[in-house]
Amino acid sequence: MKDMNVNIQAESRNATQTEVQARNFKMIIDEPQNLGGTDEGANPVEYVLGALSGCLTVVGHLVAKEMGFTLRGMRMEMNGNLDPARFMGKSQEERAGYKGIEVKIHADADADEETLNKWVEQIEDRCPVSDNLSHETPVHIAALKSVNAMSN
Amino acid sequence: MKDMNVNIQAESRNATQTEVQARNFKMIIDEPQNLGGTDEGANPVEYVLGALSGCLTVVGHLVAKEMGFTLRGMRMEMNGNLDPARFMGKSQEERAGYKGIEVKIHADADADEETLNKWVEQIEDRCPVSDNLSHETPVHIAALKSVNAMSN
Repeated sequence: MKDMNVNIQAESRNATQTEVQARNFKMIIDEPQNLGGTDEGANPVEYVLGALSGCLTVVGHLVAKEMGFTLRGMRMEMNGNLDPARFMGKSQEERAGYKGIEVKIHADADADEETLNKWVEQIEDRCPVSDNLSHETPVHIAALKSVNAMSN
Repeated sequence: MKDMNVNIQAESRNATQTEVQARNFKMIIDEPQNLGGTDEGANPVEYVLGALSGCLTVVGHLVAKEMGFTLRGMRMEMNGNLDPARFMGKSQEERAGYKGIEVKIHADADADEETLNKWVEQIEDRCPVSDNLSHETPVHIAALKSVNAMSN
């Protein structure tokens, strides 16, 4: 199939807050005050867990339909642990991001445990966000000096 | 340092739409109509790029301050390509997620090109979201049958 290109624009509003434009949708990303932020939105690592949950909904329903069972809804608890030391520049011993992500899906479904386990396997294989987190994804960042960026 | 635990709750509203609760913040994630969705929010892979941009703002300003140059603002263009075939269950040839992510930062900064390149290196090393995307992160998903999940 032809590759899909996904494109967003983003702009800092202050040292911790970002306004994102994705098509006609806006996201406000910030840090809580105890992390030095202005707390106007969820923080970047909360957005990562949110993105993953959104992907699980889409792929979960798609796969349930293919497998032939009724899925009335999904409730998800998402958890991740990270050591802020590297991010804060205090130590390089641990990685910067989540050490791992734990997801518990409560599925309101007409399916037994064995079926749900097969369902999860398929989801893990086919969910784009889960793939990008669990496997290496090249991220290339280039910085250009600009006087056009909005000043704060 | 002590690990930080990050926790969110999410619930499907229909086969493509998810409502996320992250502390006191809500996110609505959906798919556009051409991907079978109800288009009430940005989609999961757009949220991934958003999360990354939010992280770059925070770490970018932190590192600029440490390096001793003035950063008045950042404008970011974020792009990713993915082949939807695996997600749709049509082929397993390509990975499900982004093949790569390209970020262009327009930095309104009192810094020369060499300084900005060093700045980007530091950001790549210390941004939690960039780390989770560019390196493997264990994602563990468990499904439980529940009649308590909200039905649609």
